[in-house]
Order: sequence, then C-alpha cells, then structure tokens
Amino acid sequence: MKNFGRLTGLAAAAALVAMPALAQDAPAAPSAVPTDSVWILNTLLFLVGGFLVFFMAAGFAMLEAGLVRSKNVAMQCLKNIALFSIACIMYYLIGYNLMYPLGNWSIGSDETGGYLGAFATAVLEAVGVGADAVDDYSYASTGSDFFFQVMFCGATASIVSGALAERIKLWPFLIFTAILTGVIYPIQASWKWGGGFLDSQFGFLDFAGSTVVHSVGGWAALAGCLILGPRIGKYKDGRVTPFPGSNLTLATLGTFILWLGWFGFNGGSQLALGSIGNAADVSRIFVNTNMAACAGAFAAMVLTQILYKKPDLTMVLNGALAGLVSITAEPLTPGLGWACIIGAIGGIIVVFAVPFLDKLKIDDVVGAIPVHLFCGIWGTLAVCITNPDATFMGQLISIIIVGVFVFVVSAILWLILKAVMGIRVSAEDETMGLDKAELGMEAYPEFRS
Amino acid sequence: MKNFGRLTGLAAAAALVAMPALAQDAPAAPSAVPTDSVWILNTLLFLVGGFLVFFMAAGFAMLEAGLVRSKNVAMQCLKNIALFSIACIMYYLIGYNLMYPLGNWSIGSDETGGYLGAFATAVLEAVGVGADAVDDYSYASTGSDFFFQVMFCGATASIVSGALAERIKLWPFLIFTAILTGVIYPIQASWKWGGGFLDSQFGFLDFAGSTVVHSVGGWAALAGCLILGPRIGKYKDGRVTPFPGSNLTLATLGTFILWLGWFGFNGGSQLALGSIGNAADVSRIFVNTNMAACAGAFAAMVLTQILYKKPDLTMVLNGALAGLVSITAEPLTPGLGWACIIGAIGGIIVVFAVPFLDKLKIDDVVGAIPVHLFCGIWGTLAVCITNPDATFMGQLISIIIVGVFVFVVSAILWLILKAVMGIRVSAEDETMGLDKAELGMEAYPEFRS
Amino acid sequence: MKNFGRLTGLAAAAALVAMPALAQDAPAAPSAVPTDSVWILNTLLFLVGGFLVFFMAAGFAMLEAGLVRSKNVAMQCLKNIALFSIACIMYYLIGYNLMYPLGNWSIGSDETGGYLGAFATAVLEAVGVGADAVDDYSYASTGSDFFFQVMFCGATASIVSGALAERIKLWPFLIFTAILTGVIYPIQASWKWGGGFLDSQFGFLDFAGSTVVHSVGGWAALAGCLILGPRIGKYKDGRVTPFPGSNLTLATLGTFILWLGWFGFNGGSQLALGSIGNAADVSRIFVNTNMAACAGAFAAMVLTQILYKKPDLTMVLNGALAGLVSITAEPLTPGLGWACIIGAIGGIIVVFAVPFLDKLKIDDVVGAIPVHLFCGIWGTLAVCITNPDATFMGQLISIIIVGVFVFVVSAILWLILKAVMGIRVSAEDETMGLDKAELGMEAYPEFRS
Repeated sequence: MKNFGRLTGLAAAAALVAMPALAQDAPAAPSAVPTDSVWILNTLLFLVGGFLVFFMAAGFAMLEAGLVRSKNVAMQCLKNIALFSIACIMYYLIGYNLMYPLGNWSIGSDETGGYLGAFATAVLEAVGVGADAVDDYSYASTGSDFFFQVMFCGATASIVSGALAERIKLWPFLIFTAILTGVIYPIQASWKWGGGFLDSQFGFLDFAGSTVVHSVGGWAALAGCLILGPRIGKYKDGRVTPFPGSNLTLATLGTFILWLGWFGFNGGSQLALGSIGNAADVSRIFVNTNMAACAGAFAAMVLTQILYKKPDLTMVLNGALAGLVSITAEPLTPGLGWACIIGAIGGIIVVFAVPFLDKLKIDDVVGAIPVHLFCGIWGTLAVCITNPDATFMGQLISIIIVGVFVFVVSAILWLILKAVMGIRVSAEDETMGLDKAELGMEAYPEFRS
Repeated sequence: MKNFGRLTGLAAAAALVAMPALAQDAPAAPSAVPTDSVWILNTLLFLVGGFLVFFMAAGFAMLEAGLVRSKNVAMQCLKNIALFSIACIMYYLIGYNLMYPLGNWSIGSDETGGYLGAFATAVLEAVGVGADAVDDYSYASTGSDFFFQVMFCGATASIVSGALAERIKLWPFLIFTAILTGVIYPIQASWKWGGGFLDSQFGFLDFAGSTVVHSVGGWAALAGCLILGPRIGKYKDGRVTPFPGSNLTLATLGTFILWLGWFGFNGGSQLALGSIGNAADVSRIFVNTNMAACAGAFAAMVLTQILYKKPDLTMVLNGALAGLVSITAEPLTPGLGWACIIGAIGGIIVVFAVPFLDKLKIDDVVGAIPVHLFCGIWGTLAVCITNPDATFMGQLISIIIVGVFVFVVSAILWLILKAVMGIRVSAEDETMGLDKAELGMEAYPEFRS
Repeated sequence: MKNFGRLTGLAAAAALVAMPALAQDAPAAPSAVPTDSVWILNTLLFLVGGFLVFFMAAGFAMLEAGLVRSKNVAMQCLKNIALFSIACIMYYLIGYNLMYPLGNWSIGSDETGGYLGAFATAVLEAVGVGADAVDDYSYASTGSDFFFQVMFCGATASIVSGALAERIKLWPFLIFTAILTGVIYPIQASWKWGGGFLDSQFGFLDFAGSTVVHSVGGWAALAGCLILGPRIGKYKDGRVTPFPGSNLTLATLGTFILWLGWFGFNGGSQLALGSIGNAADVSRIFVNTNMAACAGAFAAMVLTQILYKKPDLTMVLNGALAGLVSITAEPLTPGLGWACIIGAIGGIIVVFAVPFLDKLKIDDVVGAIPVHLFCGIWGTLAVCITNPDATFMGQLISIIIVGVFVFVVSAILWLILKAVMGIRVSAEDETMGLDKAELGMEAYPEFRS
C-alpha cells in the first residue's frame, strides 16, 4: 500500500492540470494502458506463470514416482524435492546473474556476443519501490522475473532425475544438480536469453526453451545414462525386460500437472501482458500449447494401437509431454493446425524413440530423453516452419553448440563424480531398492508385492 | 456481462463530455479503467479461468481412477487423457464455430432464433494484433475465449467416462466422445450461449452450465448406461453388490481438484473482469461456488450419518460436487445463505439418487448421473429462486429441450456404435479387467489384491 | 514484447501532444494506475491468492492421508473435506465479522484496542456494484476479501486434523473444528488483523500468520494431543515405535501442493497489487517464500543425513513446510539470503522437535506441532531480524497472549467434549482402524498389508 496514495495523488494532480486541452482527443487517453499498469500486468504474468511452472516440480515428482518400481519411489520423491530446493538456492547464489548479466559479461559483450555472464548473487528491488527506482520500468519487477526464471532452472534439473532413477546414488546426483543449475544451465541459457552470442550472432530462436531448457536436461540425462549404465536385468540375453511403473495413476496425474504448468511455462515466456497485442499473444500461446499436447497424446495413442494392437498409456502420457516440448520453441506463430501437427510429430517421435534407445541399451527410466531431448530438437527446428525470422542453419548450429557444451561438461562432471565418490549404488542395494538401502524407509510400507 | 457496457460507456462519456468542466470532479477521470485495460483484464480472466478448468481434467481422472476397481484404473486414466485430447481437437475443428456462430447461423438467425451454428475451424487473432484489429474490442482476445470454451467442452466429455467405466470398449467410447464434443455439445450450447433460440425465445438462463455442460454430460452418460447395461455381478438375485473404489485418497484429491477448477468454471463465466462491477461479481461467484460445495459436502455427510449411522466418504465427495453443479446455473445472484441452501439440496439429492439409480439397475460407476444430471436440473430450476429474470417455464422447457436432444442423439449414436462395432467388452475381459485385457498393462502392477 | 513499445509509444505521444500544460511532467499522467484499476487488481490478487490457499486443503488432505496408516486413510480424507466445509460455513455465519468488526467491536474499540469483534453473518456487495457503492473503494471487493480470508480459516483447522489422526472420534473433532473456526480463530485474529489490541497496543507484526494462523492450529493440536493421549503402541516400554506413513508419494504431493498454495497465502497477504510498489512487494514475497521452503527442505535433508547417516523423506517434507511457516510472519522485508536462513532454521527446528515431542510422549501423527507451532513461534520472533518496526517484546508478548488464549480455550473445549461424548475411539476400533470401524469403508480395499 505504500506507494498507492502517492501515485494516485500524482495522477489526480495531472488530471486537474492537464485536462482542458484534451477535449477532442479524449478517447485516446482513456483507452491506453498506463505505463504503471503495464509494469504491474507484466509482473502479474510472471507471478502466475511462475507458480504454474513451480507446480511442474510436483508433476515431475508424480510422473517419476509413478514410473519407477515401488522399491525406489520414496527415493524418487526425495530426489525431486531436494533437486528443486538445490536448484533454487544455486540459481540465487550464482545462476541468475550468470544467465542475465545485463551487459556485464565476464567474457564477451552484448556487441561482440556474450559467452560468460556475471558472478553475483541475485538482489531484488527494495521494499515498496517506486516507479522511479525500479530496475526496468519498461519490463516488470525483478522479483517476479527471478521467480519465473528460477522455476525454469528447477524444471531443467527435474528432467534429469527421471532418466537416472533406480540406480544412481543420492548425493552425487545432488552435486551434479547443483552444478547443472548453478553453472551449466545458466551459462548456455545466457547465450540465448541473456542476449549472448547465440542470440546476437546466430539469430537463434527458442521462445520458451525446447533447447535452452528441455534439450539441456535431456543432454545431461543422456550423459548420465551412458556413464551410469542400465539397471540390472534391463538388457539381458539380448532382450529388453520391461520394468513396469508402480503407479500409473500418479504418472497420469503428473502428466496433467506438467501440462497445466506448461501454460505458465510458455505463456509467461511472452514476458509481457500489458498491451492488447501481448495479451492476445499470451492467449495464442495458451491455445497452441494445449493443442500440441492433445495432438501429441492422440498421435501416440493411435500409433501404439497400430504398432502394438493396443494403446500404451505410458506412451500416451509421454506423447502429451512430447507435444508440449515440441511446441515450446515456438508456441506463438503457429496457427492451431500447425500446433497440432508439430505436437503430433512429437508424439510420434516418442513412440519410435523409446524402443530405439532400448536397442542402444540406453536405459532411460521414464522416457526423459525421447521427450525432452529428441522433441526438444524437433521443436527447435520446427520454429522454421511458422516463424520467418528463424533460419534452419541458425537453429541447427545453436542446437549443436548447446548440445556439445552440455553433453561434454555433463559427461566430464559425471566421470569426476564417478571417480571421486562413485555414482552408482551397489548391486545389492539396487536389487533391494533405494528406499530401503539408501533411505531406510518405504513409500508404501503396508503394500507388499 | 451485465455491467460491462454500462460502466465503460459511462467512462467514455465522462471522458468526452465532462473533462473541461471537470476541475472539481477531477477524481472521476483518472479513476476509469482504460478500454485497453478492460480488454486485457477480460482476457486474463479467461486465461486464468481456463487453466483452472483445464485442471478439472486431472480432477475427473483422479476421481474416476479412485472409484473404479484397480483392474480398470489404467484404462480409466487412458480414457480421460484421450477424451480430453479428442475433445480439444474436435472443438477446434468443428465445435467452436458451431457453438459461437456470431450471427452466421446455418439454420436460423439471431433474430428468429438460431438452431445450427456455422461450420468452420477456429481461427485466432494474428500475432501481435492491435486494438484496431481485434475481433471484439469490447470483449477479450479470441484466443482466450477459445481457451476457456474448449475446456468446458472437455469437461462435458469427462462426465461421461466415469459413468460407463469398467465395461465399455475404448474406441467406441472415443468415437462417441468425438461426436459429443464436436457436434452434440456445441449445437445445444449454441442455443443458449451462442445466442440461439433458447436464449432469444425462452429467456433461458444458465450462467456457467448446470444444463449446458453438466446435464448434457449426464444425459449422454444415462443413454450410454441404459444401452451398455450394468457391470457383471452388480445386480444379482435382486441385490446390489457394492464394488468399492480402489483408491479413495485419489478420489478425494480429484474432488478437491474439481472444486478448485470450479472457481475458474463459474468465475470465468462472468466473461469480464475489467470494471468494478464485474470484479465484484466474479468475487461473489467465487464465494458462492465455495459455499455451495461446502454445504453439499456437509449435507451429504449429515444425511448419510442419519440414514446409515455412518458417514459415507464417497457420498461426501459427490455431495461437494453436487453442490458445485447446483450453483453453476446461477452462482452470481444468490447471497451466501442461498448458495448454502442450493448446494445443500444438491448434496441431499445425491444421497437419495445413488440408491435410486441402483433400484432401476442403472449402473453409474462414479455417480455421474446423480451429480451432473440430477443436480444440473436442480441447479437450473433453482435459478428462479434468486434471479428475477428467470421464469420457471423458460427454465423447465429449456431443460427438456436440451435433455431430449442430447439423450435421443446420444442413444442413437450408442446404438449405431453397438451395431457396427460393439460397445461392450467380452465377459471374460470385463472379469479380467480392462487394463490387462485391452491395454496389456496394470496401474498398480506390484500390488496384488 | 512486440507491441509493447508501439502501444506505449502511442500513449506517450498522446500524452505529449494533448497535454499542453503538462509538457514537462507529461509522463506522470498516463503512467498512473486509475483508481478503479487498483481496486480491480487488488480484488484479482485476493481471488488468485484465495484459490491457491483453497488448494492447500487438498495439500493437507494428501499430506495427512499419506502419513497415516492405510487403515485410517479414508477417515483422514473425510475429516479434511468435512473440516474445510464446516470452517467455511462457520466463518460465514460468525467468524468473518468477529475477525473484521470494522470498528464495531463488541468489547473494546479501535482506539482503546478491540477484544471481541462483531456478531453478524457475512454480507457481500450487491451484484454489479458501482464504484460509488463499494464497501471500500481504497481496498478491494468484499467478496474477494471474504474468499481470501475464509481460506485462512480453513487452513487453521486443517493443521489440527493431522496431529490428532488415527484415534480421535469424527464428530467431536468436527464440533471442535466448528468452534475453532467460528470463534477461537476469528477472535484472536481480530486482535491483530482486525485492528484489535495486539495491533494497536503491542505493535505486533505478523504478515501472513505464523502466529495468527499456524501457531493457533498448533496450540489447538497440542491441547488435543495432550488430552487425547498417544496412539496405542506408540510409546511402549520406554521406546518409540515408528508407525510409517502408508503413502509417501501422496505425502510428497501434499507438500508440493501446500508449497504452491503458500504463494497465495503469503503473496495475497500484501493485500494490494495495484501499484508498482505493491506488485514489486508481492514479487519479493513470492521469492522469499520459495527460498525459505527450499532452505528448510535442504537443511532438514543435510541434518538428518548427519544425525542418522540417512536423509529422511518425511523430515525433508516437513522441513519445506517448516521453512514456509517460518517465513510467513515476515515474507517481505528479508532479502533472499535472510529468507534462506530463516527457512533453514525452521527446517532444523523440525528435525530436533519431532523426537523431542516423542520424548514427551506427545503423539503428533504428522508433525503438525513442530511445523506449525514451533516454527510459527520462530517465524514470529524472526520478524525482528529484518523488520525494524518489530520489537522483540511486542512479538513475544503477542505470541504468549495468543498461545495462552488458544491453548486454554481449546483445552477446555476438548475436556468438555471428552466429558460429554468422549473424544477417543475404543481400543478395538483404533486397532481395527477408523476406516472400518467408523466409516465402514476402506481407502485401498484391494491392497492388503
């Protein structure tokens, strides 16, 4: 309430003084959104978008808890809440200013292209800040921006945990998470969203992060999967043994929660709500995001029916997520038809990619790599279909640069962790289940298999 | 919509006429909401309301998955995500313009009363549209309107899946869903919300859809239940065998999610947020919606305690939903006391209707018909209590017209599907459970009964 | 961002051209938020904040259902939906005006300090109210305020149900709930938030209710725990027998839902969104709330790892909640670092408090007393660290006054209920489980332990 009286006082004064000359142009004035209102509406978009993206943490937790075997469920829950907590703390301590240096690049500059952002902890605007003292009067409150961005960082880390479930040790995983969210994610994100060299030199377009968020999580997961190896018994005698998820209802719930959160993820990435054009754009984004998810789920259902004579629920769930990832690089420019097509192709990719990874003996427990990496790449390329500002080569090169950086750094990090402290639980612990072995508790202690 | 025109009209008039002379009345001018802001706020209402209604898809999924037996849970999850996906695609392809022809009726007209809307796919406003090019500057963005409305279409379809659970074949159900959401729902909805003949000739009032959404789902479910028949063993030797739901915790969660979504469902149906009157009305609607749910749950709890000496959790859950459906036709005009009474009567209806349906051997697995059809009718009639613009005959005739249309068309459709491809799984498959039989997977593979 | 520049450009141009007298001060006029917009934005904050806090009811239900044994799960679900329904009805009938007498104190006055509010049912503004007729044009719609406040009342009651789970009788518990939410909570809340004597005479600061909400639920729970006694077998032969929760996945989900709801809980308590300063403050609050939760979870994880060589999932969940409760008394003034520290200390408190209560043989099933009472006290005292307006003595005395009032009145009420109708189920019923004994149904009927 602090500034309320003051600002309206100014407005009243202005009204008293200035109105006489306005008689004929009057409609113009009352139609336009006041600049303070624009700032507030933009801020509100980040807050609402941010809490929706926050809730994706619960979605990932339920999806993963539902897709692992019951003996590893409590650990998967712990990993999800722990990784989110660590991600937020690291992003506050290091990540935010690494990602958004606002011109203060440690290496490079806005003009030449930035490569490494600034080292500083995040600082918000003062309590009750006035219009004259806000960090950026043409944007939104720094607090709301941080809130929105920290949730993206958390989402990136969540992608990794599912792929490596059921055999990775807790603490090495959390150390990896800390470096992923404090350093790896922010640095590559700065190249595009912080105005770095991918943005300025390659014209890279990635609206809400098919590459910057999803493929990054996917590359980190892929590096981990390769170094960690598959679960015991998964690939035996040349055959793939399915390890069915212990609770498909919760996996379904998790998918719906992620879908809900994606409205904030993509819609909030418009970064503005305070004009007619921006509000209409956010609306387009909401609709396209929804259509892509629907088409991804539907395509996966029809395709599994055709291929296997039975629809596959987990494929349908991943199909919806695949549609969402696919539309994330460009949820604005497509019409509804293109949104459906882009999402449907995502769903199809997942149906083929899951057995393909199994053929390569890459054991991704929840399908994170097909969904987030493969569809992240597809979605980033698909920008070219509907957005004339995108170039195929600019998109492709950026995908490769981000991919090489994240994969190589992640692999090095996994190898160091492996050498120093080991990243995989013992065979007995894996067989017993991480819940009993590492936590000493069970998710469903009263229900025996 | 009531105050929307009036207040912005006043504001514009004040700006044009009064400004020079305004010196003394100055506060009036800066107080008015700019028309651009009105449009943005209305759009925001639809986006927030829409994502809340979206989340009801998760609520229905959890409610139904919790109330079926574990052998049918994965299938119930699949049906819910599939029906929602299909509903959105069909509504985009056909439904939206059938429902909102904006005067372009295929049969009828705004003047004589419309009967059949327009045939065209939905098209949103262009990217970055300006105030001069929006579809309706006195309303909200088309994308936000579509987003909100498509979620209502999805909710209608969700109602059906619960009633027919545990024995209907997947694909015939999905084909029915496609026609329900692409054709049946939009056509009858156009009669009221598209400005058709129920609106113009009968003065039908249905604020957020006790009839247009909930009873429609209920009638379609009733037709399906009658043609499909009860589950094997449900009515045997003149006795009703209870088939307890497999996971009442998730049913409880589903109810809470639906309750949450209903704030968007009813609140968003005010269709405007950009004036004091509209914002206050949305607030009234939120409060009344909540009180009706509370009273419905409370009434069902007390009544089951009295009737059966023990409160019944599933009745309490359905009582809350019953209160919500009952207030949906008129969540604005009642005071808090009337909201409680209307909701409580809904809760009472459900407690009596569930055994009543069992007496008729109509096997509604989750209680969708009592909740959505019976309370939908009650709520529609209850409009007359608090809204002087409603007439009992106008409400009753509209309920009957919608009911006859939806029930007859649904029944014909179910019968065609039955003749062409069969709608019921085999007795062995039903006994084995749809998860193993139709999906080849289980929701809880590690937990044996 | 596309249209942002253009539209504000237009607005600025209009302002510059049309306002001769204002030439130099021009930006001031179009920048200010119109007072109607302020009112609408404040209202919107309450509606969004309110539905988030509503969802905490689902969070409490899932947390508690996950932490009790499976034989008591259905009852815990019933209690949660029933208590919320009763809380809302009681708050409408009595609580709201007791809590916010707007100067009409039954005992005391705004000047001398109020002690007992007004007796009247809540009444909302009329349908389509105009700016001249709203209850408070400098605030927000009464309906939105009621909606937000009634959810706080529901949250207070939810705290109690977890602590007393698995052995309290349903109906005495619900009668207690009715009096807690209709009388006890509103009276003590009026002392601070209604402008009563704690506010006017002691300068008590409690932004969103570490004391007014959380410790109140905690004190009521503590009184109940002491009078009810521990569960059979919990403390036997000087040893504490752990009764593991039956579904840690749902407990995790409940924690995430509560975390989500807390953004509304704390953010909405800013009570205003319609100025730059308020929007920035709400953003700060969102961020601080999130950081405190992260730090609480992280601290609890590290501490349990150190103490027990294994991290404890339920402690981590309660650590997140502890962080949230700790920051609730002052989520605005801390910087991000202090928010982390305050939250982390909350997490540490919980890890030590849970075994401490067990040592005292106080059997709190879900850890509600450590989380809500102990951290509520800590958070209230911690206001002094970052808010110079707070005094340690003012905070401490207020904590004590509220605590004594709530504990004593609650204890008397529990004792009366114990004498009149008994508050504890029979030993057989407790052993059998409340679901079968009191409800005649099971939450998971197909899954045997």
